[in-house]
Amino acid sequence: MPGLVVRLGSLILGRRLANREQEQRKLGAFEGVAAMGLDGLGSSAYGPEAALTLLMPLGAAGVVWIGWVMAPIVALLLILFASYWQTIRAYPNNGGAYIVSKENLGTRFSLLAAAALMVDYVLNVAVGISAGVGALVSALPALQPHILALCLGILALITVVNLRGTLESSRLFAVPTYLFVGSFLYIVGSGVFAAMTSAGQPRPVVPPPPLPPATEVASGWLLLRAFAAGCTAMTGVEAVSNGMSAFREPRVAHGRRTLSVIVGILGILLASIAYLVGCYGIGAMDQSKPGYRSVLSQLASATVGEGPLYYIAIGSLLCVLILSANTSFVGFPRLCRVVAVDGFLPKSFAIAGRRLVYSVGILYLAVMAGLLLFVFGGITDALIPLFAIGAFLTFTLSQAGMVVHWRRAEHGQARVQLWINTLGAVTTAVALLIIVVAKFKQGAWLTVVVIPAVLILLRTVHAYYAEVERRTRESAPLHLHDTRPPIVLVVLESWNKLAYKALDMALSLSADVIAVHLLHLAGPEEQDHRRELERQWEVCVERPVRAMGLAAPRLVILPASHRAIHEPILKLARKLESDSGGRRIAVLIPEMIKLRWYQYLLHVDRSRRLRSRLLACGDPQLLVIDVPWYLERRGPAQPTTKPS
Amino acid sequence: MPGLVVRLGSLILGRRLANREQEQRKLGAFEGVAAMGLDGLGSSAYGPEAALTLLMPLGAAGVVWIGWVMAPIVALLLILFASYWQTIRAYPNNGGAYIVSKENLGTRFSLLAAAALMVDYVLNVAVGISAGVGALVSALPALQPHILALCLGILALITVVNLRGTLESSRLFAVPTYLFVGSFLYIVGSGVFAAMTSAGQPRPVVPPPPLPPATEVASGWLLLRAFAAGCTAMTGVEAVSNGMSAFREPRVAHGRRTLSVIVGILGILLASIAYLVGCYGIGAMDQSKPGYRSVLSQLASATVGEGPLYYIAIGSLLCVLILSANTSFVGFPRLCRVVAVDGFLPKSFAIAGRRLVYSVGILYLAVMAGLLLFVFGGITDALIPLFAIGAFLTFTLSQAGMVVHWRRAEHGQARVQLWINTLGAVTTAVALLIIVVAKFKQGAWLTVVVIPAVLILLRTVHAYYAEVERRTRESAPLHLHDTRPPIVLVVLESWNKLAYKALDMALSLSADVIAVHLLHLAGPEEQDHRRELERQWEVCVERPVRAMGLAAPRLVILPASHRAIHEPILKLARKLESDSGGRRIAVLIPEMIKLRWYQYLLHVDRSRRLRSRLLACGDPQLLVIDVPWYLERRGPAQPTTKPS
Repeated sequence: MPGLVVRLGSLILGRRLANREQEQRKLGAFEGVAAMGLDGLGSSAYGPEAALTLLMPLGAAGVVWIGWVMAPIVALLLILFASYWQTIRAYPNNGGAYIVSKENLGTRFSLLAAAALMVDYVLNVAVGISAGVGALVSALPALQPHILALCLGILALITVVNLRGTLESSRLFAVPTYLFVGSFLYIVGSGVFAAMTSAGQPRPVVPPPPLPPATEVASGWLLLRAFAAGCTAMTGVEAVSNGMSAFREPRVAHGRRTLSVIVGILGILLASIAYLVGCYGIGAMDQSKPGYRSVLSQLASATVGEGPLYYIAIGSLLCVLILSANTSFVGFPRLCRVVAVDGFLPKSFAIAGRRLVYSVGILYLAVMAGLLLFVFGGITDALIPLFAIGAFLTFTLSQAGMVVHWRRAEHGQARVQLWINTLGAVTTAVALLIIVVAKFKQGAWLTVVVIPAVLILLRTVHAYYAEVERRTRESAPLHLHDTRPPIVLVVLESWNKLAYKALDMALSLSADVIAVHLLHLAGPEEQDHRRELERQWEVCVERPVRAMGLAAPRLVILPASHRAIHEPILKLARKLESDSGGRRIAVLIPEMIKLRWYQYLLHVDRSRRLRSRLLACGDPQLLVIDVPWYLERRGPAQPTTKPS
Repeated sequence: MPGLVVRLGSLILGRRLANREQEQRKLGAFEGVAAMGLDGLGSSAYGPEAALTLLMPLGAAGVVWIGWVMAPIVALLLILFASYWQTIRAYPNNGGAYIVSKENLGTRFSLLAAAALMVDYVLNVAVGISAGVGALVSALPALQPHILALCLGILALITVVNLRGTLESSRLFAVPTYLFVGSFLYIVGSGVFAAMTSAGQPRPVVPPPPLPPATEVASGWLLLRAFAAGCTAMTGVEAVSNGMSAFREPRVAHGRRTLSVIVGILGILLASIAYLVGCYGIGAMDQSKPGYRSVLSQLASATVGEGPLYYIAIGSLLCVLILSANTSFVGFPRLCRVVAVDGFLPKSFAIAGRRLVYSVGILYLAVMAGLLLFVFGGITDALIPLFAIGAFLTFTLSQAGMVVHWRRAEHGQARVQLWINTLGAVTTAVALLIIVVAKFKQGAWLTVVVIPAVLILLRTVHAYYAEVERRTRESAPLHLHDTRPPIVLVVLESWNKLAYKALDMALSLSADVIAVHLLHLAGPEEQDHRRELERQWEVCVERPVRAMGLAAPRLVILPASHRAIHEPILKLARKLESDSGGRRIAVLIPEMIKLRWYQYLLHVDRSRRLRSRLLACGDPQLLVIDVPWYLERRGPAQPTTKPS
């Protein structure tokens, strides 16, 4: 068992890393963009599309109005960029909303930020993979019956790659990331060039489908809803600040460079997409109708035609969408680690696994997202509205925390920063309000249920740890209660090498040793065995020990009333304890150590079961001593160097 | 965790039984027929049907020839009855083929019998359930898509009932058993009466479908094959002798009564079915064609019409077929227990579970049969030919063993018994030969592969245990290698109540105590924690211990190179061992005992992991001491009665 599992583990997860290798596992900006940027960059695909979908009823007028919707979004993005630029410097270890709120707004708000972020990360994985697979399936309809399997397969791939390490994931996913960036920058660049040189009336290489006739006129409410929908383009911007601990030194420089690249590319893409859909007259199409094409696909064929570049661009976009879940796998475990160190999540979230990543967080994220995908059958459209709320709640809390941070700093110096973050806080709060109102009916109300539930969970965990801390705290100096050695009970099945070694050990610990043999279901063989054991005891134990001038250990033979052997031992231990005036009792259990998988099948694990039953019985005067015995060596007599 | 599991276990499996309740759990003949007879009684349905199916090409002549096929089968049944009647008396504890062969023919043959029986039992479960569900589905075609689910559901039901106890299974299954017996005895009785009173030409109440025209004439080979097929009617006869240990005293009388009832009813049914299909002109029908009706169904409607009795009879037959697997659940675990006691199967097969049945055997049988059902999708027709071979191989070995048994007995007295068993051995051997030859191509060759494979497995297990026995055997008298107490290493995370109790314990075991604290991934907090610990050590441990005039325990702080904490401890232990001239090292691990399920999620199980790593390291000089600490009590200071 162990051997095989270890080899399989090494194959899938790579070798176990030493603690000192931690620094070499960190990221620079090149890797950072791939590790943390996939979510943000992928947003350029669905943000404008979501806004245009809401503008569809306006017909041709919609593509004119899109500018009015996207302009505030791009502006908001720039404000966020400036804010996070500052946050990274102020909190270079972990600038996530949790830490910033904790330091500046107090636990109440930091937990709210943590809950919002955690929910958001889980949703991002499920929605990201499901949207990516949705796009893939609409390109290759033959895959239709395998949506769930594809989703779970991709989830498994991302999980394993991240268990190998953040560095591995960023290197592996760098290829599609930079292909996407390169090809789309070229596409929008050539589109903007064509538009500029044709006075805003470029001739499309492949003309987009005609826009539907208008059925509504523009209203403030419609534009607000389009704005709320378009705001999904901004999720993923906070990823860098949450993942700061993944960067190598100089950390702030690497983080800022990564943030600049991600936001820069995202901003260019969003602005030029908004401009170009107007020039080319590209609108959103109904996804449920055949012949559906995404906005970016129409844009690409309008600007560069449907040659190889088109396929490279659309293919890499698909990869970016599918892999956008990776951003969560970088951020979620690191967030959980910080929250766990503060005692609001189980401590296991804070333990670095074999590859120095927080494996428990990664696995937990994978399981939760897998459950969501499974429950929704791989189609998670219903979850999309929930998605932006967490992100904007996080933005707002983080910015508000920064406002307090700058107010505490010496005035004068931080005035500019204060205003930038105030602007950020106010605008994201307004956007949050618009999103909640606009999307309340489509499921945003669910967040109002889920986030408080997570909050309660975090607080319950913390209360438990506080109680444990209170109960285990000790400030009194050591006062020895009882310096007498314990009475040692040696559990034996027959007189063999295990019993020999156990007795030898027991007599070195205490002069009061009692051997216990248990009769199981009584039968005639059982009686023969008993007589044989008593005879051997006399010859092999009592006589030689007496000859050494020591008190000979007694042999006690107990009947078991059930098959469980701990009950008679406990009874005996309690009796000995009270008879001896409260002496401690040590139960010494010889155990044949199983080093091969088949031994688990061939040996009844009486020793381990007895040990855990004894420990679970709750008697604080009892201790359990394990004496290992190894089948593959020569037994107890061999390595015992004689006392010199 | 434990609490919930325990309650759920009690609900499903019933309360834990005490050893002394064993005698009350035993069966009488009434329960014995239901527990062990379902397989045998159900055979009356498929034995004649299988023979008639082979005679179908003879048309109307087939139903005449059936008498020639069934007569030797009934005769063989009577010979087997007489043989087993004797075997039960001779081996009243367990008269299975395994024991009889072991005592009389030696290990080689007894293992062959064990392998044949084990394979047979597993096949019987899969084939029995699958045939029963097949009959059910042909009656209710709407269930067609759920065959596998039905099979596995019934398997689960039978498994759980048998885990509750053989007594429970026999009581629950007595209803369909006796309904089946009563209704079919009435059916064949009224049929025979009608035939007798009409000179062998009874008028059917509902006439059976006309027989197909003959396409062949009878040949010896065809009749032999029909005989071989009909022999499946006899499987299940050995069940009583295998399950003898389940009967209460007087055991032989209960066993013989059970055997008589089962064989008596089976014989009456087989003989009268053979007679009546001739009188009424009832033949087998093609199962794959629509309108298929089984022979017993045709017979029932011909004799008593299709009123309520017909439905009771067919319904109870269905239950008997479906539950015929129960016979295996009585015999298999008891057989495995005997084989395990002899060391040819893992010892866990010999352990009585909470309800005093051999739970491991029951579960193993269920898993193997479940796998077969799963692999074959719930339709195990292909396995039927394998089925009779195991049974007849078992019959032959058991009879041959009895022959040797009687030859060893004083002559004169046992001459009749000797001849009965010789007749049994010869006839079953001939039948076995016919079955193997007739069914070789239909899959009987598989048995020739599977049984030797099981044999090898049994021998390998035995060789392993023999090796363990050889390596653990000890006959030398105890010679104390080292009477010095061990050096005790106390593993601690911080100075708290756990550490307090651990040190208190350690100092009672040895004067040489060293506390070990491990630095995990180093960080600034880690250093603070270290300084704090060193300060507390000075104040809370060193000073008070020195004040008592004892040597103060050292505190050693070790860095961990990986996250695994056993490595530095092992290194330290080895160094101490060699520095001290081979003294033993005890690693004392304080453990917070988890009594509730959520504690498993909230605490990192460092103590258990450390313990199993230390034990697995293979150092025979090392012992591990568990000091339990209970969160829900007041800690170490409380129940320590002061030494009086």
